[in-house]
Amino acid sequence: MNKAKLYHQLAPEAWHEKGLSKLNQLICLLILLASLTAILEIEPTLRAMAPGLFTALEAVFVGMFTVEYLLRLYAIGEDPRYRGVIGRLRYIFSFWALVDLLAILPFFLGFMTHNNAFLLRLLRLARILRLARLGRFSQAWSALASALKSRTHELLLSAGVAGLLLLFSSCCLYVVEAAAQPEAFGSVPRALWWSIATLTTVGYGDVTPITALGKFFAGITAVAGIGIIAMPTGILAAAFSDALQNKHGS
Amino acid sequence: MNKAKLYHQLAPEAWHEKGLSKLNQLICLLILLASLTAILEIEPTLRAMAPGLFTALEAVFVGMFTVEYLLRLYAIGEDPRYRGVIGRLRYIFSFWALVDLLAILPFFLGFMTHNNAFLLRLLRLARILRLARLGRFSQAWSALASALKSRTHELLLSAGVAGLLLLFSSCCLYVVEAAAQPEAFGSVPRALWWSIATLTTVGYGDVTPITALGKFFAGITAVAGIGIIAMPTGILAAAFSDALQNKHGS
Amino acid sequence: MNKAKLYHQLAPEAWHEKGLSKLNQLICLLILLASLTAILEIEPTLRAMAPGLFTALEAVFVGMFTVEYLLRLYAIGEDPRYRGVIGRLRYIFSFWALVDLLAILPFFLGFMTHNNAFLLRLLRLARILRLARLGRFSQAWSALASALKSRTHELLLSAGVAGLLLLFSSCCLYVVEAAAQPEAFGSVPRALWWSIATLTTVGYGDVTPITALGKFFAGITAVAGIGIIAMPTGILAAAFSDALQNKHGS
Amino acid sequence: MNKAKLYHQLAPEAWHEKGLSKLNQLICLLILLASLTAILEIEPTLRAMAPGLFTALEAVFVGMFTVEYLLRLYAIGEDPRYRGVIGRLRYIFSFWALVDLLAILPFFLGFMTHNNAFLLRLLRLARILRLARLGRFSQAWSALASALKSRTHELLLSAGVAGLLLLFSSCCLYVVEAAAQPEAFGSVPRALWWSIATLTTVGYGDVTPITALGKFFAGITAVAGIGIIAMPTGILAAAFSDALQNKHGS
Repeated sequence: MNKAKLYHQLAPEAWHEKGLSKLNQLICLLILLASLTAILEIEPTLRAMAPGLFTALEAVFVGMFTVEYLLRLYAIGEDPRYRGVIGRLRYIFSFWALVDLLAILPFFLGFMTHNNAFLLRLLRLARILRLARLGRFSQAWSALASALKSRTHELLLSAGVAGLLLLFSSCCLYVVEAAAQPEAFGSVPRALWWSIATLTTVGYGDVTPITALGKFFAGITAVAGIGIIAMPTGILAAAFSDALQNKHGS
Repeated sequence: MNKAKLYHQLAPEAWHEKGLSKLNQLICLLILLASLTAILEIEPTLRAMAPGLFTALEAVFVGMFTVEYLLRLYAIGEDPRYRGVIGRLRYIFSFWALVDLLAILPFFLGFMTHNNAFLLRLLRLARILRLARLGRFSQAWSALASALKSRTHELLLSAGVAGLLLLFSSCCLYVVEAAAQPEAFGSVPRALWWSIATLTTVGYGDVTPITALGKFFAGITAVAGIGIIAMPTGILAAAFSDALQNKHGS
Repeated sequence: MNKAKLYHQLAPEAWHEKGLSKLNQLICLLILLASLTAILEIEPTLRAMAPGLFTALEAVFVGMFTVEYLLRLYAIGEDPRYRGVIGRLRYIFSFWALVDLLAILPFFLGFMTHNNAFLLRLLRLARILRLARLGRFSQAWSALASALKSRTHELLLSAGVAGLLLLFSSCCLYVVEAAAQPEAFGSVPRALWWSIATLTTVGYGDVTPITALGKFFAGITAVAGIGIIAMPTGILAAAFSDALQNKHGS
Repeated sequence: MNKAKLYHQLAPEAWHEKGLSKLNQLICLLILLASLTAILEIEPTLRAMAPGLFTALEAVFVGMFTVEYLLRLYAIGEDPRYRGVIGRLRYIFSFWALVDLLAILPFFLGFMTHNNAFLLRLLRLARILRLARLGRFSQAWSALASALKSRTHELLLSAGVAGLLLLFSSCCLYVVEAAAQPEAFGSVPRALWWSIATLTTVGYGDVTPITALGKFFAGITAVAGIGIIAMPTGILAAAFSDALQNKHGS
């Protein structure tokens, strides 16, 4: 494969019309597998089953990412901005090239297989985002973003109302339940934990009011939680509906 | 009843305009009853109450489905594709005829009344789907499907965002809660169980964070869960709304 | 107040344009108070506080409803259909007059203050529905009903899909969890209790899977629960939106 | 800074077009910080860590609010309605000036640092609302309000239906579960606590039915809960969508 073909296979800018190239699809898959390995490695029962496997897999993935990095460095010469040695150096210090480097360098510096390197390895997922942003989903992405943007004020306002409700119900429960359950409702920040679980309708049930008055206010909070869900949903539905009709109308 | 009439009563293709035929409605009812029997038979308290009843019911249902199978085999001769002995043989090995056979054959082979045949008996429900797909609901079905299809990318994108949120909140909780609750948050896959219960606002409460920092991240996750519900709902609402207006407009 | 005025104050048909009459508003309030009394009377702590109060209140309410019943019987003569003694008798045996009678007769027959008469007393709430149906809400009521009706098939279909999901997830959990938790997942009807709590995102947490495979299927079920909520919401939103535009467009 | 400039910086009426002035943004921030301090002060662990800090912070905030109050009193002279001494007196007894006074006066009267003054201090948040109402969010606010208003009857009706469902499911569970769990379902008001947690899909799980019939009705209630969420969401989505199209159309 010559340099120009390789560049078109690797370059994210190139797949804008035709979707993700074969090579980039393979890289996406590798990133996902590497992230999955990083996640599963922490699980003690799995690590006990195959102690050496995860280290070996990590070495294989880093090897592949290193080859990818060098290929990109070679092929980028097709881009007039990054031609020659100076251009290559400029590319190395560009944002996404640094992210690519961060995905492999720590392994060679010797601390990539440690437990504390877990989050560093998950940073690789950011590289998928970069690919996905430009690929087949770019239209859907901008449609969602513009719908959200057109209703920023309404969404912020309903978030503000939700925040005030959260604060208000926490204060109510603190006032009526603090005496009965000081551990769970002894202060507003403590009551906030119950309040957030109720208003979002998650409802863990690890903390529930026990006094009659507390249950009364909790019931009102739970009903208000429906509004907290209905408001943003309604706003988003209207925004998406409107975004589509504008597209059709023009 | 002559062969042509029987064919029109049985053939799924025939009710496209007038809805389900009387005979096919009866068969639907029988399938539902047979499935219900298969489900209830597993319940120990019910089986203890009437040990022989369920076996007898199953024999009756299989007998009826056998008669149905033979009638279909007889009447299919009306269809030019399946005329004569060769045509009948070709019909027997068509997909839906094999599904029909699978609903009765295991009983005669002697293992249909065993507990492990439970899932095999539920396969009969697939036969209802075949009827429902063509009947009165075919329009509603295609309306829903086309609405979902027109927004595939937006829905996949919001699923991707939900997946990343799921992973992100699991990692957060693993980092801050693993020390306090190694059993529940000792690895990312374990934290995922909590994370999925929270982001979908199910909130079982069998696993909840106990540290202050864990509760802080859990609260943020719960609030994000509202978005996880609001996004697909809004997208679907817009899609259904648009699908209807196109129908009216044309 | 003369008979014609009284008739216009009492007759539900009369307030169609101007909303509920003063007298009917008072009756609505009385029904709500009587129902509240019936509900609160069951609570042992309240009955212990004031043993005679609830019986006295019930007597007062029945007295007022008796006066209302007699006034209606007197004023109905204004309606040409119910003129004279024969007309009055015909009125007494009309549906709503019998409901009115049912609200007071049991008390005089001596079993209205018993605990088992609780549900009978709540039947009075049906009388509010009759008033509300014709009053100021009649437009909103028909708007909601027509929106629901226009999408009956889509709603039934998504209910069918929800039902199959419910059955499918119960079967999955029964297969993988029955051995570990025979009490909670020992049969499909038992697993259904967990399944319904999860798919509706209620999530009591009294029954949760404990095996890894069970948690895997439970996670998928919880995610599917979002669709179960998003589908009907989206359909309803589109239906309401369309209903309104038709009104404006015509 | 001269009086006219100060007035334009302080007056809420002035920022209608250009958003919130720098000075008012600073005051908003101060109010939020003061409220946060009031909330955190109650938490025993925090108060134990820094006993004098919260009292000192409160003194600082009150000092700043006092300066703000005096500046407003001085600058209000620019408004022709509040010119001169008589005007200033009229201003002092206007609604928002009294709210401003309430935010500082209790401290000087000596009971602002007590625990029972907690709610009084949170009243300051009302001052933020006043600013937010007129600022950049006024358009979003009126859009939300008009959307809610245009569907008042539909929303009230679905609230009424929800209320009846709540009552109905409480009565069902009371009838079938009272014998098995008198503590949790011994009366309708007690069953209401379970009912509200289920219909809003919060599902704490502190109270769950244990009889087969109770679980059957609970399952129906949980499914109905989806409708309780879907109805207002759909109505709001349609209302927001319509509100936007009217704006574009005119």
